[in-house]
Amino acid sequence: MSEVTATVALDWGTTSLRVYRLDGAGTVLEDGSAPLGIMNVEEEKFEEAFEGTVGDWLDAAPEATIVLSGMIGSRQGWAEAPYLACPADVAGLAGAMLEVPLARGRSAWIAPGLSTRNDGAPDVMRGEEVQILGALADLGGGDHLICLPGTHSKWARVSDGRVVGFATHMTGEVFDVLRRHSILGRMIEHAAWDDAAFLGGVEGAEATGGLLSQLFAVRARGLFDELGPETAGAHLSGLLIGHELRAAFGQDRPERVTLIGAAELTDLYAKALSHVGVSCTALEPTVAARGLHQLAQALRNQGRTA
Amino acid sequence: MSEVTATVALDWGTTSLRVYRLDGAGTVLEDGSAPLGIMNVEEEKFEEAFEGTVGDWLDAAPEATIVLSGMIGSRQGWAEAPYLACPADVAGLAGAMLEVPLARGRSAWIAPGLSTRNDGAPDVMRGEEVQILGALADLGGGDHLICLPGTHSKWARVSDGRVVGFATHMTGEVFDVLRRHSILGRMIEHAAWDDAAFLGGVEGAEATGGLLSQLFAVRARGLFDELGPETAGAHLSGLLIGHELRAAFGQDRPERVTLIGAAELTDLYAKALSHVGVSCTALEPTVAARGLHQLAQALRNQGRTA
Repeated sequence: MSEVTATVALDWGTTSLRVYRLDGAGTVLEDGSAPLGIMNVEEEKFEEAFEGTVGDWLDAAPEATIVLSGMIGSRQGWAEAPYLACPADVAGLAGAMLEVPLARGRSAWIAPGLSTRNDGAPDVMRGEEVQILGALADLGGGDHLICLPGTHSKWARVSDGRVVGFATHMTGEVFDVLRRHSILGRMIEHAAWDDAAFLGGVEGAEATGGLLSQLFAVRARGLFDELGPETAGAHLSGLLIGHELRAAFGQDRPERVTLIGAAELTDLYAKALSHVGVSCTALEPTVAARGLHQLAQALRNQGRTA
Repeated sequence: MSEVTATVALDWGTTSLRVYRLDGAGTVLEDGSAPLGIMNVEEEKFEEAFEGTVGDWLDAAPEATIVLSGMIGSRQGWAEAPYLACPADVAGLAGAMLEVPLARGRSAWIAPGLSTRNDGAPDVMRGEEVQILGALADLGGGDHLICLPGTHSKWARVSDGRVVGFATHMTGEVFDVLRRHSILGRMIEHAAWDDAAFLGGVEGAEATGGLLSQLFAVRARGLFDELGPETAGAHLSGLLIGHELRAAFGQDRPERVTLIGAAELTDLYAKALSHVGVSCTALEPTVAARGLHQLAQALRNQGRTA
């Protein structure tokens, strides 16, 4: 009975696609991934890519709820699911899902992203909200600070199952752009890493003077042989992540942060958090499957699916 | 009498070379410039480039003091003049000048750069110190905050003719790298400018959340049509300059700032400063000639020149 497919779920981002077949209790019966991110789908033939990936599962499970999340719901994706404003919970997200009729005579449901305002400035996420929902299954009620590190790191505040607000930091992209294209790149050996230099960078973010001058200090440290090709990249990474942590914490340093992401990234953030006295728990991005299961359940509870 | 050449001065940077012929009172009798920055001197034949540029002046003025400043004194230049640690004044800088014997049987003198420490992190300048000396001729004694905006903006604190300390902000380079190589570049029309968007960016720097999240907000504002190709670049510029101002001011906002630089840049900074209630005076980078004159005079007073 538990082997019956209740949900076919797709976490469909810019560069990759992950698929899950789940039973009614949310157990993953089968999964897979493909380098079929929305930017890699030829001629925007999203339905063909969809059928090619999960068509067999759908044939075998005519009653399964089909849910999708991620950039597939953006303006550049299959169909645009407008952002839902925070605060938002699973019922709100399910209620805002966009129905996409399929040629095979069923519907797929695309999760909306979330939007918020920080001091008047807008912010958005698309896909991460499903990972956050998945993490909440572990975390339970109460207040939580959740970080999804990456090219554009997301920091979400959750209270009793609702995403209250969030902020995105361009940390990963700024690191990449600076080490590839700025004067700092000349002093960085890309393959090198040094934990002490990384933690020195995290501490450097606490100094006076602001990020723009601390970036120049990376170069000056090179002139004074305080950083070299083996250490400069790790120091720069620590400096940027240190700034992200400072800004994300605001006035009140949290006791604990939940990290969601690839182990390579969450390990790095765990080191930085530990260095500033904050404990953390790390979850794999596959928690998205649990979040998509919750959305599918909510859709069924709301009677929106057949 | 005043037509006698007392000093031949060269402000020799990475990309350009400016030359001045001055009398004993510091009046510029003749000047010129060439795209002969140290990176453009073939096979590092600096003395040939030097003779080709000011050789005629030297032939006609066998007694003139020859002074040089800028990246020509760096490790990549003609001869390395080690950085002088702050605080430093004109006498200290002259005393630290490096003598370079010329094939023609005279000596040229290369100004050292300056170094300082901010919260333990090193910082350096090379060439700007001579512009600061030149500005002080106008400013007189007392305390001054001097800003040299650019790829790497310098903010120097001066007290009674001494450079007490300074900080470098990588503002111009970060702006350039982000608009060329980051996701923000896709939404920026490089040739466009909009003053209101620029000042909006300056204000944006005052918001909570830190620079890394404010950068992502530029993109999010694009998604919500609050910024477009015509305004996003100016907003980004304002955001970065706003952060530079905040960090440079520290706890105490100054009443007045002296700007030194090309009019295009000092106009921009003047707008940002005015917007946050700080008045300013702008000077041309050719104040370097006055600074070099002071160094030449100090060399003569110290009896270091023949």
